[in-house]
Amino acid sequence: MPDDLDNLTESIPTPFLMVDEAIAEKNIRRIQDYADRNGFAVRPHIKTHKSLRLTRMQLSAGAVGVSVAKVGEAEVMAAIDGLDILVAYPAVGAARADALARLAASHNIRVAVDTTYLIDQLAHAISEHDTTIGILVMFDAGLHRCGVSDPESLTRLAEYAAGRKGLRYDGVQIYLGHLYGDAANSAESFETVNRLWEPAYEALVKAGFKPTLVSSGSTPSIFNSHRVRHVNEIRVGTAVYQDYFSLKFGHCTLEECAARVVVTVVSDVVPGQVIIDAGAKALSAKQLLRSEALEMGFIPEYPEARIFRLHEEHGWVDVSRCKQPPRIGQRLSIVPVAVSHCVNQYDDFYLLTKNGTLEKERVDARGCYV
Amino acid sequence: MPDDLDNLTESIPTPFLMVDEAIAEKNIRRIQDYADRNGFAVRPHIKTHKSLRLTRMQLSAGAVGVSVAKVGEAEVMAAIDGLDILVAYPAVGAARADALARLAASHNIRVAVDTTYLIDQLAHAISEHDTTIGILVMFDAGLHRCGVSDPESLTRLAEYAAGRKGLRYDGVQIYLGHLYGDAANSAESFETVNRLWEPAYEALVKAGFKPTLVSSGSTPSIFNSHRVRHVNEIRVGTAVYQDYFSLKFGHCTLEECAARVVVTVVSDVVPGQVIIDAGAKALSAKQLLRSEALEMGFIPEYPEARIFRLHEEHGWVDVSRCKQPPRIGQRLSIVPVAVSHCVNQYDDFYLLTKNGTLEKERVDARGCYV
Repeated sequence: MPDDLDNLTESIPTPFLMVDEAIAEKNIRRIQDYADRNGFAVRPHIKTHKSLRLTRMQLSAGAVGVSVAKVGEAEVMAAIDGLDILVAYPAVGAARADALARLAASHNIRVAVDTTYLIDQLAHAISEHDTTIGILVMFDAGLHRCGVSDPESLTRLAEYAAGRKGLRYDGVQIYLGHLYGDAANSAESFETVNRLWEPAYEALVKAGFKPTLVSSGSTPSIFNSHRVRHVNEIRVGTAVYQDYFSLKFGHCTLEECAARVVVTVVSDVVPGQVIIDAGAKALSAKQLLRSEALEMGFIPEYPEARIFRLHEEHGWVDVSRCKQPPRIGQRLSIVPVAVSHCVNQYDDFYLLTKNGTLEKERVDARGCYV
Repeated sequence: MPDDLDNLTESIPTPFLMVDEAIAEKNIRRIQDYADRNGFAVRPHIKTHKSLRLTRMQLSAGAVGVSVAKVGEAEVMAAIDGLDILVAYPAVGAARADALARLAASHNIRVAVDTTYLIDQLAHAISEHDTTIGILVMFDAGLHRCGVSDPESLTRLAEYAAGRKGLRYDGVQIYLGHLYGDAANSAESFETVNRLWEPAYEALVKAGFKPTLVSSGSTPSIFNSHRVRHVNEIRVGTAVYQDYFSLKFGHCTLEECAARVVVTVVSDVVPGQVIIDAGAKALSAKQLLRSEALEMGFIPEYPEARIFRLHEEHGWVDVSRCKQPPRIGQRLSIVPVAVSHCVNQYDDFYLLTKNGTLEKERVDARGCYV
């Protein structure tokens, strides 16, 4: 990230989102190298950048396709010819099933499922089309959000999907969202996952549903994906940009944080405090509770400062510990707490290219909640 | 709000934002009636609805103009001919000042200021235009966010603004954001405000800067605005829609909550829990900490249910206390915790008109952070 924020960005009114291309590229390369070493495919989750340009960077680096959460995101990404798309989300609802069936005419579409209800909806929608939708059954590895963890239920879902015309049983989706902080690196965490997962895998194999694809993901534990048995694909979202959550929990360094919100100090009349022109609307309302205090972002130029409260358009910064506090009118940059949330607040972002120029880019899939 | 959510909304994929026109109109009417009784002007803050259509409803009811936080919001609202606009925010930055000076050619523009730095920027920008910008000096009534509270500083700001060519000293802006819950209704709160404010007001008068306008605002205490001396205008944002924060703190009834996010249950495999297709991206990440538990919205159809966690696209709902828990595929409606944040997540919303039809409307000023 550049030292001279004021000069570089003066033509762009604040607040705005800036992404450092060189850092993002390095993050993408690191993930791909790890996957290559372990014989994994990489399927980035576009929920973080929501950008066709970043997706193309990831594909150039070797990604086999993308993951999306929402069907609207799939539709935006489908602008890339032949893109292989996994909807890593239970896409329940007739409108979603119909949209996916239409997309399946031109793209390889897979959907993660954890209910026969969803399988039925997808089968119904695809029946009017001369193509197939691939199915991954969702295995709950301990997060207890979606998915089933007992071998019988998992096998039953696989069997149910495999039996439906127009659907294609492709394998299993695992999500390790419960492993962060120390748990993302402890041998015990992965033993627990494998103790659950191994019998489920074996039951699938025994029943004739050996998964072609075992797709696992989650940023904090991403470089430990090889510890989960039978995995052959990794999904990763946040790691492309990283954020203050990742940084605080030890999952990245500051040098790996690619996205910042550039802001201006707009008020400095309260002693020991400044107000910046980015609140919960421009940064997202995500906050981080660490030991004694809440934080809503990190200001690399002022590591002693603390963003301690966000109103809608006001960011409250405690600068009482700064030797030379920021002055009114000065620009600061903020590493957001949760970058995927923050990016979604913006219609556009500015890519700081490797040439040092700032290029305005769309957040193509912003607001795609359907 | 309608009973038969499924039938009414089945043509619209979830999640989406729905606003009940009749409720919003009643809320607008109630505020206007209160203001009329007290001889106040009403200047709605558009940050909540960010919609030209809702602004026109408020103007029809008697509003004298609007408040905005950001210049981008002012630019969007300026589509309404002759609209009187208060930028109730320290609009620091050359780009902001230039944009406001341009707007001042066609609209009466006022800006709230708390530094001479901002006054200088506005004076510089307006010097190239043959018009004026009105100035409100920000009085800090106890929130300690922006504004000055000592009589000398306030008078100095007024004097500084009045002395600059192209600027017009119009009065004072007060914001009562620190008064919510019991404090929004206690006589003591307002005595404290007046104890601070009265000497500041008198100092202004004595120095020849009697404010023409004394604009106060904040939803929780809005119907107590008459308790603050010399107020002659009220600004109000959230109260047009209300939300779960207002409801929980006793500032409104459920019948006054005009905005809901309509969602679908997409997973029900974990016992006692369902997952809905709206997470922190579709609801905003705002959460409410009340007594023992966090909550991220309220489901009127299932008052025993609790939205206890939001991932990006997953809402986690504890339904263990529901006699008949919602089923997979079923639609639910959610009163969001912080409606102004929630609305800003959407490019569009659906207005449930008084005729019972759903009309798609733009959130015109969404994402206007500059």
